[in-house]
Amino acid sequence: MTKTLAINAGSSTLKWKLFSMPDETVIASGLVDRLNLPGSIFTVKRPGAEKYKKVEDNITYRLAAAMVLSHLKDSGIVKHLHEITGIGHRVVAGGEIFSDSAVITDESLQQIKDLSEYAPLHNPIQAQYIEIFQTLLPDAHQVAVFDTSLYTDMPKVNYMYPIPYQYYKDFGARKYGAHGTSHRYVAERTAEILGKPLADLKLITLHLGSGSSVTAFDHGKVIDTSMGFTPLAGVMMGTRSGDIDASLVTFLTEKLGISIGDMTDILNKKSGLLDVSELSPDQRDLEDAEDKNPKAKLALDMFANRVIRYVGSYVAELNGLDALVFTAGSGENGIGMRERIADQLGVFGVNIDHEKNQVRGRETIISPDDAKVKVLVVPTNEELEIVRDVARLTTPHSKY
Amino acid sequence: MTKTLAINAGSSTLKWKLFSMPDETVIASGLVDRLNLPGSIFTVKRPGAEKYKKVEDNITYRLAAAMVLSHLKDSGIVKHLHEITGIGHRVVAGGEIFSDSAVITDESLQQIKDLSEYAPLHNPIQAQYIEIFQTLLPDAHQVAVFDTSLYTDMPKVNYMYPIPYQYYKDFGARKYGAHGTSHRYVAERTAEILGKPLADLKLITLHLGSGSSVTAFDHGKVIDTSMGFTPLAGVMMGTRSGDIDASLVTFLTEKLGISIGDMTDILNKKSGLLDVSELSPDQRDLEDAEDKNPKAKLALDMFANRVIRYVGSYVAELNGLDALVFTAGSGENGIGMRERIADQLGVFGVNIDHEKNQVRGRETIISPDDAKVKVLVVPTNEELEIVRDVARLTTPHSKY
Repeated sequence: MTKTLAINAGSSTLKWKLFSMPDETVIASGLVDRLNLPGSIFTVKRPGAEKYKKVEDNITYRLAAAMVLSHLKDSGIVKHLHEITGIGHRVVAGGEIFSDSAVITDESLQQIKDLSEYAPLHNPIQAQYIEIFQTLLPDAHQVAVFDTSLYTDMPKVNYMYPIPYQYYKDFGARKYGAHGTSHRYVAERTAEILGKPLADLKLITLHLGSGSSVTAFDHGKVIDTSMGFTPLAGVMMGTRSGDIDASLVTFLTEKLGISIGDMTDILNKKSGLLDVSELSPDQRDLEDAEDKNPKAKLALDMFANRVIRYVGSYVAELNGLDALVFTAGSGENGIGMRERIADQLGVFGVNIDHEKNQVRGRETIISPDDAKVKVLVVPTNEELEIVRDVARLTTPHSKY
Repeated sequence: MTKTLAINAGSSTLKWKLFSMPDETVIASGLVDRLNLPGSIFTVKRPGAEKYKKVEDNITYRLAAAMVLSHLKDSGIVKHLHEITGIGHRVVAGGEIFSDSAVITDESLQQIKDLSEYAPLHNPIQAQYIEIFQTLLPDAHQVAVFDTSLYTDMPKVNYMYPIPYQYYKDFGARKYGAHGTSHRYVAERTAEILGKPLADLKLITLHLGSGSSVTAFDHGKVIDTSMGFTPLAGVMMGTRSGDIDASLVTFLTEKLGISIGDMTDILNKKSGLLDVSELSPDQRDLEDAEDKNPKAKLALDMFANRVIRYVGSYVAELNGLDALVFTAGSGENGIGMRERIADQLGVFGVNIDHEKNQVRGRETIISPDDAKVKVLVVPTNEELEIVRDVARLTTPHSKY
């Protein structure tokens, strides 16, 4: 039995999960929050144990990684650090280079850095963590798992933009998608739950969280997804606009007298559910308020509407639909939002059993038994998908 | 019998059509092209007569209008100019103010000018022509017919953008749509052809020309349309991109080192079919080339794809579909493009009879007789819709 660490690093957070492999048991998980800020918070959870929490000022990226490993050893979660034989890193942008997860080498690490312009807030930090773990655990295999790999081989007609062809060649201006690890995990689980090969199914997976995206799987191949060149595009989100008329960027930049950078910031951080409702980016808050607050209701209705528009488009592209799958925060827990969405999709044979739908965070088929289109709730598990990729790419005769 | 003039003015063209009313016969039509440029071209067509053509340098807006009226009188098309009792003007932006066409008064003319920021290339010029005809034909009733009126009363969930609510209140940032006069005419004709009230039908109308848009009619009410705050949004077009990730505006502006205004210009004039194919904005050229030119094929496939995505979204929003209607340049004449689109919509019950589809510019039902969803070709006639509105709003006891 070996241990594999899944690392999900952002600009101010380090999320990790330690798995025993190949049995895929979670041994411990944790979060270091408010990195490089006063009052950084270091927490660890273990099955059956109390949560460990420590607050310390200005924990750096390097210190955070070292603290995780020290804690694992000091608390006896591992006896020796060399038990951790693999580390999988979530990396946001893989461009067109990485159509699969990749073992870290000098070359692949350099490529991850070179792709930073597609994810300036993520790739440089994620590359930095790879280097940090190279020094801390030099013998562990490291693997990068990209949010975008699932989408590199979509049909060209779907990933190209109707803008000058030259911009694709010169600057890689195309649809890259995001949340790929989540959509892949959920699609594979759906096939298992339905007892059919993924290669036999037309699926639409709805990853609905603070960031949201919709992906279409045609007989095991991804053919389209709602996120675009960046994760700003697609359905409405907690604070992101999703699709808008590109002319609004120009118009509003001029009206507000701000820079285009500030405008992009508004579309990413001050739009979506939060700024339509003028209340909250969280659907639970909006559901609590909607009876008395028309803007809260409008925000929720718009969210559901943008999702059903994508489902309709993808039913067209798939020329059919076998299953619709809800995952991530609102997808797994939003009983009301699932109803709001599914109830508008009757024309495609989508139908949910409102009693079965009374479920949060648990794998369930929520369509009636005889439904033409199966509707499922499948909690996502990106970390598990990450450590499976580590095993697949670094273990001879891996089962994956 | 009276005569009514329909005026469609752009920045460098004046298109006009003279109708006898109420019998709706076209008496003459014409175009003044290359206005304010060397070699302006003045042409007039009459049923059964040879085309009249005159080239003259730098024809101004005022001179163009005066030449049209002089020609009508001098050539005996009208005996006296006061036979022309009504003039209908196409006006691009009507904002939220004009939910119907409007008789020109001092107030409505001022409002049209005030709406110029939504259509800076059109409203000021169209207001100017209204004033020119006020001096040339002071006794004629003038009516403004807006591209946007059809869309003012769409459900809020569809016309609002997922951006700060305040931008809607402060700057009118919402979906206004375009091509409304065309979609309205075609929807009404479809109901007549099918022998059913429009109020009983779920329709999707496809206006596919150099500018393209898709509109959904739910029992006589428009519920959604693909063009947005401006006519840049929606499906791919001849030279316009249609929908893209808004982040691309920022990214490309920086990469190319150009202004945001120049970028908007590229998205409007150097994108779409023209710049994906690197060949032509015209689908006929691309169809001629596609066997040997992969980019021409890609451009055509992308165009069809963006249309079927919208059809799918609107089938979801309509929760059904009774008829799909093709109009405008490519919609009326593009036998191949109609096939390319309809053949991908089988999942919605759309199906065309490939023999019936061998038609250009003629009202035809192209679906099989027993088809669940009727598919039609209906040539648009915005000018007729315009003069009907003039009659409806200015003639007591009008039949309209």
